[in-house]
Amino acid sequence: MTASFHPPQRLLLGPGPSNVPERVLAALARPTIGHLDPLFVGMMDELKALMRRAFRTQNALTIPVSAPGSAGMETCFVNLIEPGDTVIVCRNGVFGGRMRENVIRCGANAVMVDDDFGRPVDPAKVEAALKANPGAKALAFVHAETSTGVESDAATLCKLARDHGALAIVDAVTSLGGIRLEVDEWGIDAIYSGSQKCLSAPPGLSPLSFSQRAVDTLKARKTPVQSWFLDLSLVMAYWQGEGARSYHHTAPINMLYGLHESLVMLEEEGLEAAWARHRANHLRLRAGLEALGIDFLVDEAHRLPQLNAVRIPEGIEDAPTRRRLLDEFNIEIGAGLGPLAGKVWRIGLMGASSTPESVDRVLAALKSVLGR
Amino acid sequence: MTASFHPPQRLLLGPGPSNVPERVLAALARPTIGHLDPLFVGMMDELKALMRRAFRTQNALTIPVSAPGSAGMETCFVNLIEPGDTVIVCRNGVFGGRMRENVIRCGANAVMVDDDFGRPVDPAKVEAALKANPGAKALAFVHAETSTGVESDAATLCKLARDHGALAIVDAVTSLGGIRLEVDEWGIDAIYSGSQKCLSAPPGLSPLSFSQRAVDTLKARKTPVQSWFLDLSLVMAYWQGEGARSYHHTAPINMLYGLHESLVMLEEEGLEAAWARHRANHLRLRAGLEALGIDFLVDEAHRLPQLNAVRIPEGIEDAPTRRRLLDEFNIEIGAGLGPLAGKVWRIGLMGASSTPESVDRVLAALKSVLGR
Repeated sequence: MTASFHPPQRLLLGPGPSNVPERVLAALARPTIGHLDPLFVGMMDELKALMRRAFRTQNALTIPVSAPGSAGMETCFVNLIEPGDTVIVCRNGVFGGRMRENVIRCGANAVMVDDDFGRPVDPAKVEAALKANPGAKALAFVHAETSTGVESDAATLCKLARDHGALAIVDAVTSLGGIRLEVDEWGIDAIYSGSQKCLSAPPGLSPLSFSQRAVDTLKARKTPVQSWFLDLSLVMAYWQGEGARSYHHTAPINMLYGLHESLVMLEEEGLEAAWARHRANHLRLRAGLEALGIDFLVDEAHRLPQLNAVRIPEGIEDAPTRRRLLDEFNIEIGAGLGPLAGKVWRIGLMGASSTPESVDRVLAALKSVLGR
Repeated sequence: MTASFHPPQRLLLGPGPSNVPERVLAALARPTIGHLDPLFVGMMDELKALMRRAFRTQNALTIPVSAPGSAGMETCFVNLIEPGDTVIVCRNGVFGGRMRENVIRCGANAVMVDDDFGRPVDPAKVEAALKANPGAKALAFVHAETSTGVESDAATLCKLARDHGALAIVDAVTSLGGIRLEVDEWGIDAIYSGSQKCLSAPPGLSPLSFSQRAVDTLKARKTPVQSWFLDLSLVMAYWQGEGARSYHHTAPINMLYGLHESLVMLEEEGLEAAWARHRANHLRLRAGLEALGIDFLVDEAHRLPQLNAVRIPEGIEDAPTRRRLLDEFNIEIGAGLGPLAGKVWRIGLMGASSTPESVDRVLAALKSVLGR
């Protein structure tokens, strides 16, 4: 017989998931009700309103995709991109590469704008690519690169897209709730995030929002969306139907309870207060890391407060050190991804994990395992 | 400020979700740990073994898709079917129609074998279709049609597929854990289910299993899988990697705790005991419905014990009656879908909802609201 699984209480300071507060865990465990239950439909309406406030948007089409952030990314591309389209894709980390995969699998052309891992997207290169590819359907970029800890200038990039008649598709998996993000003010057309980063819900949902321009693009498609599950023209009938909602797929009910609670908590704290908290705890971490002689990968001007990529000190082994943090201190930090594997650690201070206590615990643990 | 959401305790006797036991809800609320944490990887290995026992298979590729059953369906089609392929699709309910949508969106040809809603798939028609379409890549059918409450003869249909060199793709969303299902003995090549039916976990995950023949078909593809998120050649590296797992997408950690616990409970009860329980409670419901003069849609020989489609008695309004059951008795039953809307109710007795007490409660409530 298999025994029930009892996970330990870790301090999650990797690239996500972040720690999930007791209130959110308690919400997950509330009784399951039907996905067409009028009380559930009322909760859905609240959830959409909460998501709009977190995204700073009035977009009608603002819903949680019933799957993790990767599916949110795919939802944007399969609904907006058709075979033969050209998409300018900015790649300054692993997730820009994943966007490219999505574009290609839609039968479209990905024109890459590459910047070094650890650097922000260069608007001058993006402008050149837009000029060189008139009629490009979209510009796609990652606001907060989880693989490197870099923030790109989303407002400027969106303006470039708009000036060239391209849709702006933005990955906000790690930015939503952690740093300033203004969907309407910046003119973002399609955006997706993840539940498990700065929102502190468990992984499994992807908050998503489409502008009216994006909805119009979806409605004007000449070919069907290649994914039935992610086809927003069908999903909308469930999330946006008038009165009775029509069944598309069974919504992940308890997970939605959790996301609702995490957004209620964000509303209670205040979005700008949450941004300030992420910033303050980043500064506390930075001071402590500097004292330990640990360097950041990213220039100060472009660092994400919620995802701190630091160079593994010389002479220190990567995996065994992270394993000691986990086994001896119950602290998870993240490994490097792609070309940064073995070269950096990623210390996340996201959502409920972004506290002075978390910072002090990880600094003390690093001091111990590094023998400094 | 938005308040926390507190759902009521419903008795869920619709087509899913079914009631989630306290043990499973408690598992959902355990501390989130990292999706690459060695303790989590150990839980994943247990989960795969539990799923294999529930599916009665030795298939190495047996994993939960990180999204609801609809995504499990899509995973089967996008991984196995390529543009230009022919797939024989059996349609005796809503979900056969959804399979057709999937086939078409893969750029393949769907040859439909239609049977009336409420009737099982006719093996003679399937054999004729396989003979008329030599080289068909797959035969796809629904084992337990959630929209009508019909069981089709999966063993016979799979044998026909095998005899004609076609893969057997089977929807077991409502059958897994409720009625006999023998993946290896019947020769099923690709199967998907849902967490929220006879397994009594919340919705949001789709247990899936591929035979070696299906894996070989995936490996021999000439075109890339159109979905990045559902591409099993990538997903496998996370679920099946040797030692360290490579990151694909962030697994829905707490939901997986819940599925694990629900499968532990199924193992404790015993799979065949669970089938017998579903059967016994169905018979109890049948006796009570007959006493109320309520008829089944489906012939006795093909009725699913876990999903009872009954004709709405003459002179009784559909929606207001279901609403009274919900508001006055806290009982949810399901509406008809597609052409059966307004004509039938679907009374689910799935998983933890399949108890004598559930049966007695819904019978008493029906007696009251129908005035009999």
